[in-house]
Parts: sequence; C-alpha cells; structure tokens
Amino acid sequence: MSDPTLDVVAIGNAIVDVLAPAEDALVQRLGLEKGAMNLVDAEESTRIYAALGPAVEQSGGSAANTCAGIASFGGTAGFVGRVRDDQLGEVFAHDLRSIGVRFETRAATSGAATARSMILITPDAHRTMCTFLGAAAELEPDDVPPELIRAGAVTYLEGYLWDQPAAKAAIRHSAATAHAAGRRVAFTLSDPFCVERHREEFLALVEGDIDILFANEAEITALYETDDFDVAVAAVQGHCEIAALTRSERGAVVTDAGGVHVIPAEPISRLVDTTGAGDQFAAGFLYGLTHGLAVPECGRLGALAAAEVIEHVGPRPETSLRELAAPILD
Amino acid sequence: MSDPTLDVVAIGNAIVDVLAPAEDALVQRLGLEKGAMNLVDAEESTRIYAALGPAVEQSGGSAANTCAGIASFGGTAGFVGRVRDDQLGEVFAHDLRSIGVRFETRAATSGAATARSMILITPDAHRTMCTFLGAAAELEPDDVPPELIRAGAVTYLEGYLWDQPAAKAAIRHSAATAHAAGRRVAFTLSDPFCVERHREEFLALVEGDIDILFANEAEITALYETDDFDVAVAAVQGHCEIAALTRSERGAVVTDAGGVHVIPAEPISRLVDTTGAGDQFAAGFLYGLTHGLAVPECGRLGALAAAEVIEHVGPRPETSLRELAAPILD
Repeated sequence: MSDPTLDVVAIGNAIVDVLAPAEDALVQRLGLEKGAMNLVDAEESTRIYAALGPAVEQSGGSAANTCAGIASFGGTAGFVGRVRDDQLGEVFAHDLRSIGVRFETRAATSGAATARSMILITPDAHRTMCTFLGAAAELEPDDVPPELIRAGAVTYLEGYLWDQPAAKAAIRHSAATAHAAGRRVAFTLSDPFCVERHREEFLALVEGDIDILFANEAEITALYETDDFDVAVAAVQGHCEIAALTRSERGAVVTDAGGVHVIPAEPISRLVDTTGAGDQFAAGFLYGLTHGLAVPECGRLGALAAAEVIEHVGPRPETSLRELAAPILD
Repeated sequence: MSDPTLDVVAIGNAIVDVLAPAEDALVQRLGLEKGAMNLVDAEESTRIYAALGPAVEQSGGSAANTCAGIASFGGTAGFVGRVRDDQLGEVFAHDLRSIGVRFETRAATSGAATARSMILITPDAHRTMCTFLGAAAELEPDDVPPELIRAGAVTYLEGYLWDQPAAKAAIRHSAATAHAAGRRVAFTLSDPFCVERHREEFLALVEGDIDILFANEAEITALYETDDFDVAVAAVQGHCEIAALTRSERGAVVTDAGGVHVIPAEPISRLVDTTGAGDQFAAGFLYGLTHGLAVPECGRLGALAAAEVIEHVGPRPETSLRELAAPILD
C-alpha cells in the first residue's frame, strides 16, 4: 500500500460564518439554545439575520476550520464539502485553497445557497450558532473520491454531517475506504445536541469504526448519558484507540493504550470568541499525530492552537501555528 | 421650508470589503498603487483575489462607512447606493439597516454583481484597495429621491462616484436639490488618484457647489497641484465655507470663516488598519456640525472616530462612538 500524501482528509459542512456580537437577551429572545449549534431553515435564517446587528463574514465549517489549522502548522490537508456556485461559495473555496488546502468538491449549480452559520458572540465570549445548511446538506457519496480518502493518513469526519442522510452514507463509505487502505479514521462529536439527536448511531460508530475520537466534556458525557466525566473517560477508553477530550479552561484529557494523559490549557491573554476552539484543538492534535509526536505532545499542540483562536474573533488561525509551536516542534 | 429629519444623507458606492493581510511584495507584484484605490474590472478582480490569502468580508464603501459612524454617534443618516440582489448585496443592506441607517435604493435584478473592494492590509497597517465597482457603477439620477435629499441637513457626496458618468449626473442633481432646499452639501475628495483623474471638475465643484470639503493632505495638494500643504490650505479657504483636512498622525486642519483650526490626532494604543480613517473623521465632524457644535469640537469628534477605527481591522466602528465621545458631548 502506498504512503499517504496528505496528513488529513476532512469531510464536513462547507459553511460561511456570519459573526455578530449579541447580548444574552437576544439569544434568549430568538429562542436559541445558548452555546449550541441550532439548525435553522431558510425562513428562520432570514428572521434571525434581520434581528442581528452588523456582522462580519468569514469562512467556517468545523472540519474546514481544522484543515485551515493543519495548514497553519505546515501540514497538508484536503477537504470535502458542498457549496453552491454563489458568492459565499466562492469565498469559502478561496479561503481554503489560498492556504493550500486541497478542495475539489464541485459546486452545486442549482438548489440551495451556500450554507451559512450565524454566530452570536455574547459578552462572555461564548458563541451560539444558527446554521442554515443549504448546499452543504446535499453532499453525496459521489462527492468523496476514494483516491482522496486513500491519500490521507487520517480521514477526519464531522458529527454535524449526521443530520443529513445522504452525507451519512458518504461518511460510512469513506470510513470503510480509509480502513481498507490501512488509514486511520477520526471523528468529532461536534455538539451535545447533535449527540442527543444521534446517540445510538454515534455509539455504534465510536465502538466500531472510529480510531481517534474528539469531543468536549458536554459531548462525551451526553454520549454515555452520564454526569460524571470520569465515567465517560473510562467508557471511551475501551472503544477508541485514542480519545481526545477537551474541557475548556481545564485543558484536555487524552486516553490511549498508554493510559490517561492530562493536558493543561495554554494560558491566554484575553478571551474574545470561543468559536473554533474545538476545531483548532483537533488541528493541532492531528498535525502532531501525523508527524510522529507522542500523544501528550499532540495534546499540547491542540491546546496551543485552541488558545490562539479564542484570542480573536473568527474560527481560523490568524497567526502561524507553525511559528507558535516552534518551542515544541523544533 | 421644513426642518431636516436626518442629519446626513450620503451618496456613494455600495461596496463589500474583502480584507486580507498582505506583504508589500504582493502589492508590488500585483502592480497596485500602494495606499490608493485601484479600480479593477471583473477579470483583474478575479486575478487579484486568486493571489490573496484568506480574507474577511465586511460591509464598506466610503460614504456608507461614514453613515455607520454617524449612527454610532447616535445621529441619523440615509444612504443611497446600488447593490445587486445577490448575497453580498444582502450583506451590505443588512449591515446598514441593522444600525438604523435608512437605505432604500432598489437592488439591481440584473447586470454586474455587488461591488467589492479587495483591501490589502500591509504590515505597516496601511491599506491598498482594488475595487470592482459592479452594480455600484449603475447608480442613476432616478435612484436619488429628491425628498430624501431634502430630508438631510447635509448631503454628503463621495468623490469616488466621479468615475461613473451616470452617478455624476445624480450627484450634480442632488447638490442642486439640497441647495434649493436650503441644505448644505459636503464632498470628500476620496483619493489622490481620483483627484488626478477629475481635477478640473473637482475644482469647479469645490469652487461652486460644495459647502463642506473633506480631504487628506495628499488629496488637497493634488487638487491644487502643490507640494505645499499651507498653499493648499490657503487656496481652499477661499472656496469652501468649511474645509476639514486630515493629516494622519498629525491630526487635522479645519478652515472656516473663523480662520484655521488645528486639531490634534487622538492618541491610539495600537495601529492595526487605516481603512476607514477618513470616513470616520467625516462621520464625527458631520455629527458635530449637525448637532450645533463649534468647528473645533467637530474636528475633535472626527479625530476620535478615526482613532477608534484604525485600532482594529475593518472600516466601521466596533465600539459605540457615542460612549467614546461622552467627555466631549455631555
């Protein structure tokens, strides 16, 4: 079997973020679940947008953000996700390609517009997302070229995709292709409400198909229906080769065959916007893993990337993660 | 004649900015005039965009930015400018309306896309603009409702509009309408290269039609074809009731019937992006003027608004200018 030519191939929702500051009262008034990803249809999307103040548009999408992080570390990544041939689709494609991420999924020429996620950033720096999936929801198995999956040392899959039946098939197929090629499969639980919606299937995936699992505390405890983080840690240890579990300012816990590794959070100078924290943790971790680092060092790279992204507005790195990580990597 | 119901009605190019950090070498390699507004066609726009790194999209347009600043002071503004009925047009309209700026120009249903300006921010925090005018260039006299012009205490016009023959007619007509209603007409020279392109017409405008002129040092010296700022100041004094001339970190010089007022620059903690500095100076000045402040205080409000906007990326205020200006206004 040939060596992989990409560190990571990610499959996810191709989304442009619409970032707007918002008071807690607005989140409440709009009936949104604070801190969560709320799926909205076109009509709701219009209603919510009209209630928001001025916004900034910036490429997002969880797995695509992770690709951007890997590129910022100097790694190689490919992304699969569906946009439409509209202005926001062009923005999304540009922003990935301009940093060297391979992105070849054909843009839809009809149907819904490119997905957007309105992200309400409350004064506590937390984000509440309202996502209109649009064209992203039309991802099909045919959009995922098997040779691209085989090219990646790790195939990284977004739990958010589970909300779309066609995308689900694409994911199952990609995981099988990756394993058949001797590659590893990584998965992120994405969001606690997403876990609630798909718990049984996620459990089956985690037990059977996933080598590397990413989750935050709320997600992993939702998966195992427990309030006790340690109970969830013990459960996941038996299921995945590696589980990287993030806990915000308390850092992360990573389990592997070597046991349980506690990773401290990287100190930050100011907390501005938590959007992308989990995505960038995954970027650092996967970059380390595909470059031969030991699991605790992978965790440190994850913590470092997460710290960078929460110090500014927007879900992707603004400074070179390769340079920030020089003390660890050199 | 009835009292005005809006502080300012502005006419300008309706533009979404595409903000990207860039090295000086890239500005040079693309053949752009650093610090200037470079007009580009659709093809050049595509070429330049492909050469840029990841960007952030944010509503812009010089006169529209000024409207946003006036709203941030708590003032009232209306904006006239043409977008298309596309995603960026929707973004532009949303961002103005969500802060209470009256914006009723109908979106074009065919023709070129909404204007975008790629703004390359070099490490010295200066910006070089590449503007594809698109739908904005299709502004026509019919787009400017005379009753809207009559509603504004000041009609504010953008020099950039002069690159478009149809818009030029709209401007001349608006200035006449404003004067007939006993209102004042303000004008910004916009850009030194814009002045070079239209010097004769700008001189005629300034001498005959403009009550309040905004310009920076490069623009006013270009207008009067002199290297000597003081010569330009003396020249403009004879032409306009008020001339507000900005000089970056050296503050501003404002001339009126009372003589020459020197306004110091507001201290800043960090210089991030000069985009919008002139637009926000005009916002502060016009807010002051339409609220009965003396000219030196108007200049202080302008300096304060300019200082806020250059401390962050993007051309519009991120903090309440009303609150920042409380020591002056209360």
